[in-house]
Amino acid sequence: MRIAIDAMGGDHAPNAHVESVLSAAAEWPDTQLILVGDPDVLRPLLGDNAPGNISIEAASEVIENEDEPVRAVRRKTNSSMVVAGRMVKEGLADAMISSGNTGALMATGLLVVGRLTGIERPALAAMFPTLDNKGLLALDMGANMDAKPEHLLQYALMGSLYRSKVHGISKPRVGLLNVGTEAAKGNELTKITYGLLENAPIHFVGNIEARDVLEGVCDVMICDGFSGNILLKAIEGAASSIFKLLREELTSSLMSKVAAAAMKPNFRRIRDRMDYNEYNGAPLLGINGLVVKGHGSSDAKAMKTAIRQTRTAISNRLIASLADEFSGK
Amino acid sequence: MRIAIDAMGGDHAPNAHVESVLSAAAEWPDTQLILVGDPDVLRPLLGDNAPGNISIEAASEVIENEDEPVRAVRRKTNSSMVVAGRMVKEGLADAMISSGNTGALMATGLLVVGRLTGIERPALAAMFPTLDNKGLLALDMGANMDAKPEHLLQYALMGSLYRSKVHGISKPRVGLLNVGTEAAKGNELTKITYGLLENAPIHFVGNIEARDVLEGVCDVMICDGFSGNILLKAIEGAASSIFKLLREELTSSLMSKVAAAAMKPNFRRIRDRMDYNEYNGAPLLGINGLVVKGHGSSDAKAMKTAIRQTRTAISNRLIASLADEFSGK
Repeated sequence: MRIAIDAMGGDHAPNAHVESVLSAAAEWPDTQLILVGDPDVLRPLLGDNAPGNISIEAASEVIENEDEPVRAVRRKTNSSMVVAGRMVKEGLADAMISSGNTGALMATGLLVVGRLTGIERPALAAMFPTLDNKGLLALDMGANMDAKPEHLLQYALMGSLYRSKVHGISKPRVGLLNVGTEAAKGNELTKITYGLLENAPIHFVGNIEARDVLEGVCDVMICDGFSGNILLKAIEGAASSIFKLLREELTSSLMSKVAAAAMKPNFRRIRDRMDYNEYNGAPLLGINGLVVKGHGSSDAKAMKTAIRQTRTAISNRLIASLADEFSGK
Repeated sequence: MRIAIDAMGGDHAPNAHVESVLSAAAEWPDTQLILVGDPDVLRPLLGDNAPGNISIEAASEVIENEDEPVRAVRRKTNSSMVVAGRMVKEGLADAMISSGNTGALMATGLLVVGRLTGIERPALAAMFPTLDNKGLLALDMGANMDAKPEHLLQYALMGSLYRSKVHGISKPRVGLLNVGTEAAKGNELTKITYGLLENAPIHFVGNIEARDVLEGVCDVMICDGFSGNILLKAIEGAASSIFKLLREELTSSLMSKVAAAAMKPNFRRIRDRMDYNEYNGAPLLGINGLVVKGHGSSDAKAMKTAIRQTRTAISNRLIASLADEFSGK
């Protein structure tokens, strides 16, 4: 299988990307890893002894985080992100991964790779860490800001298929993000969606409250892109604020410094369990090809996790299964 | 001034409520505190030496958390919550506080006390703790699930007035909860609202991302009730999950137990700084009378905080100011 990696997108590009690709190439010799970017930058980083299953595809431009997504994708046709997307479109790669500009990656998916027949709106799916360590796939995290009930129904079907194909869960529990657990709760969107999900060929477990997301109450959680983005960033922000307070407190006196030093492994374990990078690699579901978003701050380890997820999705023919599911509709 | 307290609503009713009222009555002799509920239950809790500025108003029914809000308010006309609301309506109390069923309290506000002239939809305003310890007033936290841009504009005006009248902030910074800081970001609702807020007589500071809410980036944050509820519960849930992991880790070995014991005061300080009860007392803004929601899990200290906030709002003629602001429109 062949995976195109946007080597120029993300806070730690290209170094982390090259490092992860070197490690992935050694672990999975059956996988062709294609670094897309400036050869003059990438070749020295790869070194002289790079294994044969790594190659470089030249791209002279870079889409920056500040670029307006749609315009950037239309104008920077030789950017690393767009070139990687074109490789997927033309069948030269089975998937692409980028940790660059999220909006631009969604535009690349829609405009360069193209929508899957039958899908009205693609959704960005992200894994949340959960206390039971099983993780929760949440979609949409921000691809579609004004979702309709039918979009949410399609997210539920796509999310279910992803969890069963990529994570091997036989009957994924699907929940709807809402302000209360009762069926009648919520806004117009969730009330109508609830009825659609009840009658869908999925294992619908009802409404899920935002406070229960990290507890592992379902395997797939559905929401509109606006709420999803609020949820994701609220959890990230709360975690970061608490850890900031912890750091302040733990360095406030000699006593607490000594105690904190003793507890370092404990704190590291908590951080690891809350770590989004552990689940790096958010697929843009509903695109006619595998387009995977890495966290903007992905380091080499996180990039390798994204490559691992992508490999599994390719092996299990995720896109073909989604196409089968929706093409008849 | 006279404050009616729903003595039967909330997880720790009526004990915490009676305890808080006894303490408040001693601290503020100018305030008449009216406990609304079952006299047979309340009288023994008050004891024989209750000060003269505490009285009991009989109410034979209780609205439970499981009750359907509107039906409960319509049918349980002799419930402690509805009786307290009626006292506000009839001018027998200057404010009411309840820690009971949130939906029922909103229905009490709308159906019993009534809307303020000129306000289309009331909003539930809650204070969030922030790292700079100044707190942030966020509205709407769930009174109005399908908000329109004009509602959000009214929230901005009401929130600004509340922060200046009750908290003495001269030019409160107003932010709009959104998925990015750029003006063009968001869904249809936030895009249109952005334009309205720019032209409103408030100190609008632009879009606020969910991850920055606890950092203290503004004094008033505006959002629709659905997103607000997701945000509030996401932050509560993330904090609770992290503290759960901390507890697990800190009791995992003798070493960590000893270290954790040494750090108890530090942890307590963190918990206090993240404590929503510190800011207890969320006003339902847009009602023609002061209706204040206490957190469901309010203890005596939190109830007293709600009483303190309510006193300040009464002294500063909050409702009259809101009426002046909106009646002409």
